[in-house]
Amino acid sequence: MPLTVNQLSESALLERILPRLGAGSAVSSGVHLGPGDDAALVVVPDGRVLISIDTQVQDMDFRLQWANGYRTTGFDVGWKAAAQNLSDINAMGGRPTSLVVSCTLPGSTEVAWVEELAEGLSAAVRELDASTCVVVGGDLGRGTEISVTAAVTGSLDGRAPVVRSGAQPGDVVVHAGVLGRAAAGLALLESDYEYGSLQAELRALVEAQCRPRPPLQSGPAAAEAGATAMMDVSDGLVRDALRLASASSVRIDFDPEVLQRLADPLGAAAHLLGRDPLEWVLGGGEDHGLLATVNPNVMPLAGFTAVGSVEAGLAEVTVGSQSPANVGWDHFAD
Amino acid sequence: MPLTVNQLSESALLERILPRLGAGSAVSSGVHLGPGDDAALVVVPDGRVLISIDTQVQDMDFRLQWANGYRTTGFDVGWKAAAQNLSDINAMGGRPTSLVVSCTLPGSTEVAWVEELAEGLSAAVRELDASTCVVVGGDLGRGTEISVTAAVTGSLDGRAPVVRSGAQPGDVVVHAGVLGRAAAGLALLESDYEYGSLQAELRALVEAQCRPRPPLQSGPAAAEAGATAMMDVSDGLVRDALRLASASSVRIDFDPEVLQRLADPLGAAAHLLGRDPLEWVLGGGEDHGLLATVNPNVMPLAGFTAVGSVEAGLAEVTVGSQSPANVGWDHFAD
Repeated sequence: MPLTVNQLSESALLERILPRLGAGSAVSSGVHLGPGDDAALVVVPDGRVLISIDTQVQDMDFRLQWANGYRTTGFDVGWKAAAQNLSDINAMGGRPTSLVVSCTLPGSTEVAWVEELAEGLSAAVRELDASTCVVVGGDLGRGTEISVTAAVTGSLDGRAPVVRSGAQPGDVVVHAGVLGRAAAGLALLESDYEYGSLQAELRALVEAQCRPRPPLQSGPAAAEAGATAMMDVSDGLVRDALRLASASSVRIDFDPEVLQRLADPLGAAAHLLGRDPLEWVLGGGEDHGLLATVNPNVMPLAGFTAVGSVEAGLAEVTVGSQSPANVGWDHFAD
Repeated sequence: MPLTVNQLSESALLERILPRLGAGSAVSSGVHLGPGDDAALVVVPDGRVLISIDTQVQDMDFRLQWANGYRTTGFDVGWKAAAQNLSDINAMGGRPTSLVVSCTLPGSTEVAWVEELAEGLSAAVRELDASTCVVVGGDLGRGTEISVTAAVTGSLDGRAPVVRSGAQPGDVVVHAGVLGRAAAGLALLESDYEYGSLQAELRALVEAQCRPRPPLQSGPAAAEAGATAMMDVSDGLVRDALRLASASSVRIDFDPEVLQRLADPLGAAAHLLGRDPLEWVLGGGEDHGLLATVNPNVMPLAGFTAVGSVEAGLAEVTVGSQSPANVGWDHFAD
């Protein structure tokens, strides 16, 4: 029988987790105090700290076993917990500096799964090039469902934060990262096309859903270049753009040809599942790319693609001046 | 039928919560950006930020309805989420500066219960005199059980953090706040003495369990006075003192007469339930008082009671030089 969480004390479980978080490197990374006291202490170079928090819950945000047979690994959940939090800092133009993590685990959870979760967290921080970010502490508890909450701090390194409310008519709307890939991956996970039989291109979409890769260099770069507004695309391009449009009191008009170009690489998955790939580009969340607005004179902006324009008008989102519903966006879809 | 969470959109629920958090006061309290963007921005006066995270889960950390008939209110859960996080900052000698909160809620949760949770959070911040602390953001999600995670930041205002590892033989062991009251309250909640029929003194113990009051002035005061080690008592006096003793490689010896004096006010509850009140003082958690060690020359220290001494020796905890098990401590009890 595999070792489960209810067979270990909290301190014994922690002893298995901490080394996997790279927590020992805390002091060398400019963090004053890491795990082991009541709170961690993190250096904040410019006297201001960004902070955000996000939770993933089993069967709501992920399934341990999907319809297509894929089993969500602890590594996936740890990676995604880090990625979605790091993305929130990126969206403000910041650089992540620390993570604290609270895990609620049923007693029957395998210890190996929890160890993988710690490895996924630290792999995401490393592979997404957030190497100045350190896991400094956390909390372990019991419950009937797996729930992982991370809170993240970040530094603006002297820059102003990029908020949602600064878009100006005449700005270019730009995007960094991927669009629709996580949604296509989710559709595959929920399909009956067995994961093991999928070709590599389609497996990569499942990976985009389970281990998203927010473009962590692009947030600070956009801030440096003077982006007027920015946010990450976590709930879908149209839905999130509408938030930015509302905060800025402008209309955001996407270029239908550009969106179609972004949809084309999703063609194979869409064909297999009988879907329109543009739906995923317009409505799909969890890619954690960046949506920003910039003055045309800073274009081209490395890492970003121009996807539309900011227009004066009511707070709304259009695609080629039409309602997104006319081009395949379903506002009831998740 | 009362309004439940599944009848409202996330944004409609947020609109009911945010005003109750006093989030509008964020800017005036020196916080740069409050809720509404991907991350909040908090001013950090001395270039270092303390950070901690804690989770409460339904049926693990609280029951919606207890054996004695008491119903845990949203206000209780919000208060406790704030209190236990604020206490972690206090334990380092810090002053809390911001809270972010992530709530996982079953769809059947009453909206009024969630509104009370927000009110409890902000009442705790206000009534515990943490008025420089602002709720700056959060996250709402669904699950099958209620789970509330808060992360807290704090400032040391230029002081050194007080860690667990600095206790020196010859130091006085001191305590601020209450001991055993939350455990006595828990025992009452788990008894069949109906809550409504309890006398005021016993109801106050239930309140100590549901709405603990960490002494938030005492942490910074102890740091200022040069406390050599400190932590909050969240898992029980003996258990937590053992952590401090281990981190500092010293023996902590409690004065049995002082502990007995602290146990005496719990006599009525102990008599009713047929328990030894000293058990609660030695083993009871969740009071979130402060355990600290100080050089004798700073005594008396306002707000703190001398409860023992730091002795050279193996990392252990004794009571009048005896094993705590000999005086009523049960290390298997929760």
